[in-house]
Amino acid sequence: MLLAMRRVAIIGVGITKFGEHWEKGLRDLALEAGIKALEDAKISGEKIDAGYVGNMASGSLAGQEHLGALLGDYLGLNPIPITRVEAACASGGVALLQAYLAVASGMHDIVVVGGVEKMTDLSTEQVTAILGGAGDQEWELFHGATFPALYALMARAYMNKFKAREEDLARVAVKNHKHASLVPYAQFPKPITIETVMNSKYIASPLKVFDSSPITDGASALVLAPLEIAESYTNKVVEIKAIEQASDTIALHDRSSLVEINSTKVASKKAYKKAGLSPKSIDVAEVHDCFTIAELLAIEDLGFFKKGEGFKAVGEGKTTFGGDIVINTSGGLKAAGHPVGATGIKQAYEITLQLRGEAGKRQVKNAQIGLTHNVGGSGATAVVGIYERVS
Amino acid sequence: MLLAMRRVAIIGVGITKFGEHWEKGLRDLALEAGIKALEDAKISGEKIDAGYVGNMASGSLAGQEHLGALLGDYLGLNPIPITRVEAACASGGVALLQAYLAVASGMHDIVVVGGVEKMTDLSTEQVTAILGGAGDQEWELFHGATFPALYALMARAYMNKFKAREEDLARVAVKNHKHASLVPYAQFPKPITIETVMNSKYIASPLKVFDSSPITDGASALVLAPLEIAESYTNKVVEIKAIEQASDTIALHDRSSLVEINSTKVASKKAYKKAGLSPKSIDVAEVHDCFTIAELLAIEDLGFFKKGEGFKAVGEGKTTFGGDIVINTSGGLKAAGHPVGATGIKQAYEITLQLRGEAGKRQVKNAQIGLTHNVGGSGATAVVGIYERVS
Repeated sequence: MLLAMRRVAIIGVGITKFGEHWEKGLRDLALEAGIKALEDAKISGEKIDAGYVGNMASGSLAGQEHLGALLGDYLGLNPIPITRVEAACASGGVALLQAYLAVASGMHDIVVVGGVEKMTDLSTEQVTAILGGAGDQEWELFHGATFPALYALMARAYMNKFKAREEDLARVAVKNHKHASLVPYAQFPKPITIETVMNSKYIASPLKVFDSSPITDGASALVLAPLEIAESYTNKVVEIKAIEQASDTIALHDRSSLVEINSTKVASKKAYKKAGLSPKSIDVAEVHDCFTIAELLAIEDLGFFKKGEGFKAVGEGKTTFGGDIVINTSGGLKAAGHPVGATGIKQAYEITLQLRGEAGKRQVKNAQIGLTHNVGGSGATAVVGIYERVS
Repeated sequence: MLLAMRRVAIIGVGITKFGEHWEKGLRDLALEAGIKALEDAKISGEKIDAGYVGNMASGSLAGQEHLGALLGDYLGLNPIPITRVEAACASGGVALLQAYLAVASGMHDIVVVGGVEKMTDLSTEQVTAILGGAGDQEWELFHGATFPALYALMARAYMNKFKAREEDLARVAVKNHKHASLVPYAQFPKPITIETVMNSKYIASPLKVFDSSPITDGASALVLAPLEIAESYTNKVVEIKAIEQASDTIALHDRSSLVEINSTKVASKKAYKKAGLSPKSIDVAEVHDCFTIAELLAIEDLGFFKKGEGFKAVGEGKTTFGGDIVINTSGGLKAAGHPVGATGIKQAYEITLQLRGEAGKRQVKNAQIGLTHNVGGSGATAVVGIYERVS
């Protein structure tokens, strides 16, 4: 990097309820989240200079591409540029990175960035096939390897290598449902037990229904501004200290290891370095738990726990309230829901609430520094963001 | 804009043949264009810091999303960030803008940006439905308004208002086919006559088969670098003087006028201003002629000719070799082909060849300044770039 870039703050946040919104369409959800974010920032649409939206598959799910223009239109933002970005389940994270760059570079001042997915209009089988497009369609999905199957391979490898059991995976789900029970926007805000998970049906052994994130409709949005003017909009300024993206092979069979996600390791190392922080600095993190195994890989690859010891940390309560680091106060993808394109933005929404001290019953005490971790596919893309309360 | 940004140059270009590639898949096409661009820049993959890819609809066309990661993988670029950007038929232009920003900001030095679409694996009816997702699915396509129908409405309005005839539209196609006959990568490199167009079947009156761009497979790629180091890679440096994006309503029925594309006007005004140039400065331009009417609107909205007089200029030969400004030396979308996500990048490819003096039989003499104009949908997105040969 040769030029100084500006520091970037989050000055407004918005979210819809996550769940099955049969009465609302894609544009309604995005509009609701966007308007809430603008209201939260107490800013009018005319002040917005550009927009970004993360969405994975509205083309396949709803026959609607060109979401940037669609949502800009419905938010009344014409003629400013609005751009859709896609990286499968990391679409939200990648959109946030592009929005950050637009502000940091000085190209734009006030930028709105949203994520949205409307998934429940099709059958589970149809949605599973569409989500398979996040991996290698020709070499994985075509041969029957859906996402539960791919993560099941990782789970099996992890269990074999580190002597973990299905109950150890289940504990991630139990923790995240407990957290979600405190979250107004969560799709499944109810506690479950180990038995709930263990007695649920296998989707792809060893992963069961309750090891898996649900199919969800929802949207989330943020308003970004240069740090230097953020205080004119809010007295609780949250800075994006770093946001970094890395990639790995699209297909699982090309990886050297199934018990780590290299893109997470690379992106997080770059993010820690840029922020001048270490994993120990993080008070609260939203990580990508599309399946329970994914959370174990994440908390190890992000450096919170040693490789192969994440499941023990979960079992010892180190990743919930009162532990070393609270992981997924939102309930994660598992229990808050996973409207694919919205997830990366929702993670930043949740961390912003935590750093502002506005997380209600799920507030982590004295949370100053937070992290988001958003994964595309089986790890071919990862985006890691680090956030700090600065005023 | 508060910060100085770096000047950005194109140091390498690549393209595949446009046409029906039944023997090649999406990833093969993208790989071929990407490797050609790296070879043209005489740069190895390890020097690349990030990538962007423009693609409209690989999810619907091939069941494959997450193209950034897929193509990064196949180009051997892991673990650098690679990001897919989508804005319907302007996907390539928007990807180029994001890549430009990544270099201009100082976030990355060497960035590869590609565009790709593999469209001929499905039937024309299926592809037409998928392309309808570039407009308003709920309010246009669902009711039968495909893209030929939307542009036919614009054509009818233009003909009524300015007393143009179907023959005036046809002349755009004749010119572009004449140009394409000189272009090695063109899908239809053969001259046609007014009669060819006039005797072709109506698709949506007044637009006929030969008023319409074809369904095409193809890819194109560019390598970008900061201007300050561009001469270490090439002795024919082409600078991106400006690239600007604007938006309009997604649906045609919300526009105040059907005889202009406001996003083109806004984006081009911003681009001219940033480049410190006027329409008169442009020697050669690639404009978005998905239908013949679109080229007439474009050359007026870009300021080359007065509103309502574009068709006369075409009739008088002002837009071909020896005229005021040569429009679509490539043959345009009409005759070179329109692999949707690749088109915006191919336009920059063609202009780069022209400014380098490497355009062979279609070379515009002493071309110093060129322009690209890429439209999404019926005009909900437009991207305008201005390029200059600087060494």
